[in-house]
Amino acid sequence: MSGHLCVVGLGPGAPEQMTPEAVAALDAADELFGYGPYLDRVVLREGQVRHASDNREELSRAGAALARAAAGAKVAMVSGGDPGVFAMAAAVCEAIEAGPEDWRRVEMQVVPGVTAMLAVAARVGAPLGHDFCAINLSNNLKPWELLERRLTAAAEAGFVVALYNPVSRARPWQLGAAFDLLRGVLPGTVPVVFGRAAGRADERITIVPLAEADGGMADMATCVIIGSAATRVVERPGLAPLIYSPRSAE
Amino acid sequence: MSGHLCVVGLGPGAPEQMTPEAVAALDAADELFGYGPYLDRVVLREGQVRHASDNREELSRAGAALARAAAGAKVAMVSGGDPGVFAMAAAVCEAIEAGPEDWRRVEMQVVPGVTAMLAVAARVGAPLGHDFCAINLSNNLKPWELLERRLTAAAEAGFVVALYNPVSRARPWQLGAAFDLLRGVLPGTVPVVFGRAAGRADERITIVPLAEADGGMADMATCVIIGSAATRVVERPGLAPLIYSPRSAE
Repeated sequence: MSGHLCVVGLGPGAPEQMTPEAVAALDAADELFGYGPYLDRVVLREGQVRHASDNREELSRAGAALARAAAGAKVAMVSGGDPGVFAMAAAVCEAIEAGPEDWRRVEMQVVPGVTAMLAVAARVGAPLGHDFCAINLSNNLKPWELLERRLTAAAEAGFVVALYNPVSRARPWQLGAAFDLLRGVLPGTVPVVFGRAAGRADERITIVPLAEADGGMADMATCVIIGSAATRVVERPGLAPLIYSPRSAE
Repeated sequence: MSGHLCVVGLGPGAPEQMTPEAVAALDAADELFGYGPYLDRVVLREGQVRHASDNREELSRAGAALARAAAGAKVAMVSGGDPGVFAMAAAVCEAIEAGPEDWRRVEMQVVPGVTAMLAVAARVGAPLGHDFCAINLSNNLKPWELLERRLTAAAEAGFVVALYNPVSRARPWQLGAAFDLLRGVLPGTVPVVFGRAAGRADERITIVPLAEADGGMADMATCVIIGSAATRVVERPGLAPLIYSPRSAE
């Protein structure tokens, strides 16, 4: 017999940005897996079992959850933001493909959520208003040269770029190198938005021109949005400026 | 005196995929603006005024809403999916920049939502699991040559591509032309996901290899996700195949 694995997007962090579908999926589970700080956001009901793990252990966490689901348990895997955007859904799929045959019989569901770049964009206007890319800046799983190639291609073609996982203790220099590279392609006036913990109590939003953007302005919890040459800054009396990318952008 | 304009993301369509934040923002408004079919999803409470408009009239709709907010009204502008992704947030920002000075004094808030590509991706696995682009295929506001350049750049650099607004009555050939172009860059085996009305009662999800992808497989309500050369198809006994893009993709 086979259980069920639901990969649940918690959204950017504020409870009012989590969908009712996600709330129901968490409530329906017997066992919850996830990175500790994400699991901390969930109030368990009596009888639910919690399996917290470290943030570098996606594949083993996915395997542990699949093993429980294959044994018949109703399992939820919690994920920050949207599970499909640099989060747990791909790790679960990888584990299914590489794992034992009975993991392919597990019913798997993904519950989407508001991913970080959408929450950050909402706080400043509409920086993702025209064509854009989302890039995971972590080079734990892919070579840095590939990231350089993607950043260059995206900026040259006029995409706005949203960067996830811009820095970590083990990757201190990549974000600064990305800004250096982009300064070679884009005007220094292009606005860069650093959005940390968007929508949460400890939110911090910073906007600087690309010329002044520095890798030290971000941490692990920051999503960075780099405008295109067409992205606009609209000053407003008594209000924060609006940042938006016009729909017509060439 | 100045009112307030809140641009609200309704999510992909199912009520359980709309955030509590969006529900509260709609409830707090005196007047609601939007494209008719989106407004139809909202149950108005007594005293709320409804201003429905056609789907080609984003800028005039934004101006009408701003004028009411500048006059002191509490206004909500409804938007499908997420307002910041090819929806109303950029149109409102454009109207503010081009409009009279008092529109810049209007407090504007954006409430993010689950955008279509996330809802579609969730139904098939994790096709957006590595770096990806979102492209609005409408060339109403930008030249087709720019879209060709962006599609080529994205595919050559290994991004997964999500296409919004793939076809309309006035733009029947663009999606087919995009597939032809991409077949020149990517293997014909790359999976293409057509996701229509994801999460709603009339949902229709179709997966075909790029070699067989045809412009006629989509309509206005479809979001199309085209894998990269690294995107995987995992067959499962008795279940739909999983489509995912591995995190390590080179």
